[in-house]
Amino acid sequence: MAEKKLSGAGLRGQSAGQTKLCTVGKSGSGLTYCGYDVSDLADNATFEEVAYLLFNGELPNQAELNSYKAELLTQRDLPKALKEVLKLIPADAHPMDVMRTGCSFLGNLEPEVDFSQQNTASNRLLAAFPAIMCFWYKYSHDGVEIDCTTDEDSIGGHFLKLLTGDTPSELHRKVMDVSLILYAEHEFNASTFTARVCASTLSDMYSCVTGAIGSLRGPLHGGANEAAMDMIQKFSSPADAKIQMAGMLERKEKIMGFGHAIYSESDPRNVIIKAWSEKLAAEFGDSSLYDISVACEEFMWDTKKLFCNADFFHASAYHFMGIPTKLFTPIFVCSRLTGWAAHIMEQRSNNRIIRPSADYIGAEPRKVTAISQR
Amino acid sequence: MAEKKLSGAGLRGQSAGQTKLCTVGKSGSGLTYCGYDVSDLADNATFEEVAYLLFNGELPNQAELNSYKAELLTQRDLPKALKEVLKLIPADAHPMDVMRTGCSFLGNLEPEVDFSQQNTASNRLLAAFPAIMCFWYKYSHDGVEIDCTTDEDSIGGHFLKLLTGDTPSELHRKVMDVSLILYAEHEFNASTFTARVCASTLSDMYSCVTGAIGSLRGPLHGGANEAAMDMIQKFSSPADAKIQMAGMLERKEKIMGFGHAIYSESDPRNVIIKAWSEKLAAEFGDSSLYDISVACEEFMWDTKKLFCNADFFHASAYHFMGIPTKLFTPIFVCSRLTGWAAHIMEQRSNNRIIRPSADYIGAEPRKVTAISQR
Repeated sequence: MAEKKLSGAGLRGQSAGQTKLCTVGKSGSGLTYCGYDVSDLADNATFEEVAYLLFNGELPNQAELNSYKAELLTQRDLPKALKEVLKLIPADAHPMDVMRTGCSFLGNLEPEVDFSQQNTASNRLLAAFPAIMCFWYKYSHDGVEIDCTTDEDSIGGHFLKLLTGDTPSELHRKVMDVSLILYAEHEFNASTFTARVCASTLSDMYSCVTGAIGSLRGPLHGGANEAAMDMIQKFSSPADAKIQMAGMLERKEKIMGFGHAIYSESDPRNVIIKAWSEKLAAEFGDSSLYDISVACEEFMWDTKKLFCNADFFHASAYHFMGIPTKLFTPIFVCSRLTGWAAHIMEQRSNNRIIRPSADYIGAEPRKVTAISQR
Repeated sequence: MAEKKLSGAGLRGQSAGQTKLCTVGKSGSGLTYCGYDVSDLADNATFEEVAYLLFNGELPNQAELNSYKAELLTQRDLPKALKEVLKLIPADAHPMDVMRTGCSFLGNLEPEVDFSQQNTASNRLLAAFPAIMCFWYKYSHDGVEIDCTTDEDSIGGHFLKLLTGDTPSELHRKVMDVSLILYAEHEFNASTFTARVCASTLSDMYSCVTGAIGSLRGPLHGGANEAAMDMIQKFSSPADAKIQMAGMLERKEKIMGFGHAIYSESDPRNVIIKAWSEKLAAEFGDSSLYDISVACEEFMWDTKKLFCNADFFHASAYHFMGIPTKLFTPIFVCSRLTGWAAHIMEQRSNNRIIRPSADYIGAEPRKVTAISQR
């Protein structure tokens, strides 16, 4: 649900710095990365091109892209010690705790010793995150030690093949790629701001990203697509969805996947992922989850004038691709890492430690009383 | 060195929220925790009482303190899986990467499932951090798997015994206790603010603390006492210190341990740790590092009107107690955890997600060009 617009609290509407990376909701909608509209990028670029754009400020030409993808390809496998750590994490752990720990542990083995290594470290994480997620998931849930390399050309395809063991369809590859583009960057959201605060102490890339994962874990930030999935799975039909949502509103229950703290009119990512979810539904051969999602969208608009955000149709889209709900937020990590790393680099390039003040509302000055007198 | 006072950048001087926990430098000096002056607490309370104060808002009476310490005592040992992870981290890893990873990994095994467990999780980390640090250190450096429990009553004494294997002297116990009090809390510093941003997404305690450790790792934040140690060890005498520091100033080299972003007149923690460092020097039987430190203090005041901050005399104090320099910042973690956890609880008690805005200074709107045309 959209939050109330309180001025001041949560630094809402206050500038905490400058960025060249992103604009969000400038005219009530709209999302641009380095000047490019996100829908243009989703139509006409790949996730690897977007990662390159965020890290370098410009889209790559074909030779640059080939070289970049070749580098990422060599960085996919995990060190043996990291696999040992992942094997020690139980199946009932929170998958975001696994991502946070995997990132943090890798920082012990392959530290970013100085900032000349920031691109190397960022690319390493970008290439390795799908394996961190899938190696732990398949080992803890199925007892299988997967091979962390695949012959898939793209990060999206690589992730799907690691997870399912099967070569993904062209449609699945394309939708995963679009999804990674849509989630890649979003200005000074809480996880990115966490990364920038950490970066402002001149800490290393792994610390900054580990902190950002911890923030994305929070239910007010990362988990909306999982919550949307949990909800739509409970509805048996579009008609049932509308009846049950009316009950939820009456009971003032939270409905995730609608509205946005920054966008006031619409979330530009919704129309994109919604269209892909519809295509996946057709391929899947059972469109009921998509039809239910459309009913939810209509109901929330008609009753509350709340629009779907990026997360809502991601739920059905991921589900059609066979992705377990608990991995939805870890996929967000694999994508948003690009934005985080770009912001970390940007913070470093013109740094001042982020150290605000607080208004004191506590006890007046007082003296310690001897413990026997308390 | 004190930073320049630029208004605006780094949110300096801007309020990012309210707190009941701390005031810093209200009259150019001064540090209070929940209304108590830090020097009063250092003289008349123990670290466990300060932890209790920060978590509960009031100092404990004797029965409450006994019960609190008894709880902490049962929480010192590490799970076997965590020990396995620590054994996989090489000796040349950054000790703050070890603390960050140890904290993150523990969150997989003993998650904070809901906020009713926030005190339990905080106390668990408070009790376990000395063992996380020392188990890794002794295993990776000496090949020894230490017992993570001791019969030491206090956290400070427990840490010293884990590290050295010997029962610490009363003086060492006292100084470690005072040191933990002095570093416990400092309002909206960068690591605490990191923890609050993370907490504002309603993420779990382990995520928030893991992020804070990552920020404290940065050389602009946590590492000043280590840098001070590296410097004073290079000086052969007080006279040599003054000559070499003059050269450092002339070459515009950074001199750590002096000045402060918030305090303008003095750091109230300096006089306290300085007095204890002098006592340790007398016990140690060779006061040269203390004498050199005093010479540095005089020199920086006479030439630059810069005062010692909390970190400077900590270097010699820790050294006199036989603590390896690379563990100075991890000790800071063991202490500041109390402030972090208290701020996390406070943020949760009146939360709004911390999500500022940014000033966009990037490329104008543009269209994606086909890759063949780039």
